[in-house]
Amino acid sequence: MPIILVTNDDGITSQGIRALVEAVKPYGEVVVVAPDSPQSGQGHAISIHGPIYVRRSDVFGGIESYECSGTPVDCVKLAKSVILAGRTPDLCVSGINHGTNHSINILYSGTMSAAMEASLEGIPSIGFSLDTYQSEADFTPSIPYIQKLVQFALSGGIQVGTLLNVNIPNLPSDQLKGIKICRQGEGRWVEGYLENKDPRDRPYYWLTGKFEHENPNPDEDTWAMRNGYISVVPAHHDLTNYAAIPSLKVLES
Amino acid sequence: MPIILVTNDDGITSQGIRALVEAVKPYGEVVVVAPDSPQSGQGHAISIHGPIYVRRSDVFGGIESYECSGTPVDCVKLAKSVILAGRTPDLCVSGINHGTNHSINILYSGTMSAAMEASLEGIPSIGFSLDTYQSEADFTPSIPYIQKLVQFALSGGIQVGTLLNVNIPNLPSDQLKGIKICRQGEGRWVEGYLENKDPRDRPYYWLTGKFEHENPNPDEDTWAMRNGYISVVPAHHDLTNYAAIPSLKVLES
Repeated sequence: MPIILVTNDDGITSQGIRALVEAVKPYGEVVVVAPDSPQSGQGHAISIHGPIYVRRSDVFGGIESYECSGTPVDCVKLAKSVILAGRTPDLCVSGINHGTNHSINILYSGTMSAAMEASLEGIPSIGFSLDTYQSEADFTPSIPYIQKLVQFALSGGIQVGTLLNVNIPNLPSDQLKGIKICRQGEGRWVEGYLENKDPRDRPYYWLTGKFEHENPNPDEDTWAMRNGYISVVPAHHDLTNYAAIPSLKVLES
Repeated sequence: MPIILVTNDDGITSQGIRALVEAVKPYGEVVVVAPDSPQSGQGHAISIHGPIYVRRSDVFGGIESYECSGTPVDCVKLAKSVILAGRTPDLCVSGINHGTNHSINILYSGTMSAAMEASLEGIPSIGFSLDTYQSEADFTPSIPYIQKLVQFALSGGIQVGTLLNVNIPNLPSDQLKGIKICRQGEGRWVEGYLENKDPRDRPYYWLTGKFEHENPNPDEDTWAMRNGYISVVPAHHDLTNYAAIPSLKVLES
């Protein structure tokens, strides 16, 4: 029976991970290792300056589950090295994130970085995100697509070193148009900071901002998601910009 | 006069950022925005669940400098949106990191994620790392290479959306073999966890590990650095694995 590692960044008590565990449990032995607190925006952070704690959790009844005080990437590392020691997961799934991780948001996302970490270890992995920040979101329409992708992954469909970034529009089932394979979208955050003073009269800044991408192309995940498709972007950990290499060779002399 | 934004992940008082400021100040108006505490391993983390604080710093004498309670990526965002509001840096340099960031370590590195964030904003950027964890490292042999790269960047040598990941062997000047343009190396971390109990008798885990890459190819940064070259990898933020797209199209039906 395949071992399916489940994690997320919204924390072990979020609705999204609950829906994901329900979706994948028919397909293998599920082990959950997830943060004990919200870890959105943690990117690929790891805990090196201090220890992390792990506790057995009963959030998922009979399913082997652990909550961890670290980041999403810590959860994957700890799962592999300690919790599953010796047993390599056949698949890692992360999410379902409350909020999208299309385009450049893959870089900031703890959900996607957990999937990336599993991929670095040679484990096929998929991160799922739903386009709503509501804690009581309806994950039901996502489930058949998640199950299709999980079955595809477990049958060897994902190349080693590749992870899938899956973003799902927040629509009823009859309005979802199906899966579309895409490239990572462009776009950017236009940042702002809320400025205020704390109770000790010290000025502080709190990040706010708006994602802007006015005219995405139909091959970008942003376009797919905005147009009713479940976007699937194959990603990998090689950040090399190969096209830039020739123009830099002059630096070697 | 060009504006050069300087940041790092080891914190504003580290020797590495001091050496970097000295190296780049002949080439522009330097503004330092760096973390007020060590932020190694923070990856692309951003502070969204709470506020960050910023204070003017006098660590660099007459140079406009700020210390920030956030992550390296927060420093870049805050520099752009608040501190430099309206003035776009012509270049962002990050480092000099105490310890290497070659190969997959670019993903975990706060130093490189700060450079990536600047690159996302269209600012040419370079992250520098020296192959030693000693706090009293000798950065002198690195300086001519850093200055060469900074001049190259300020003359328009780096394409928009590209950042450079520069790793420098810890060798005396006469043993450095020059710059080598590379791709991001392979290799992996073999993790371990130190297990112990805290003063309240709670078991904890503390990440340890060893980077392994036994036979790098000469086009990988790991090889270059181990063989006396300053490795330069052009990186970008597009994580799409384009080669994997065709094999996934079957999912669309």
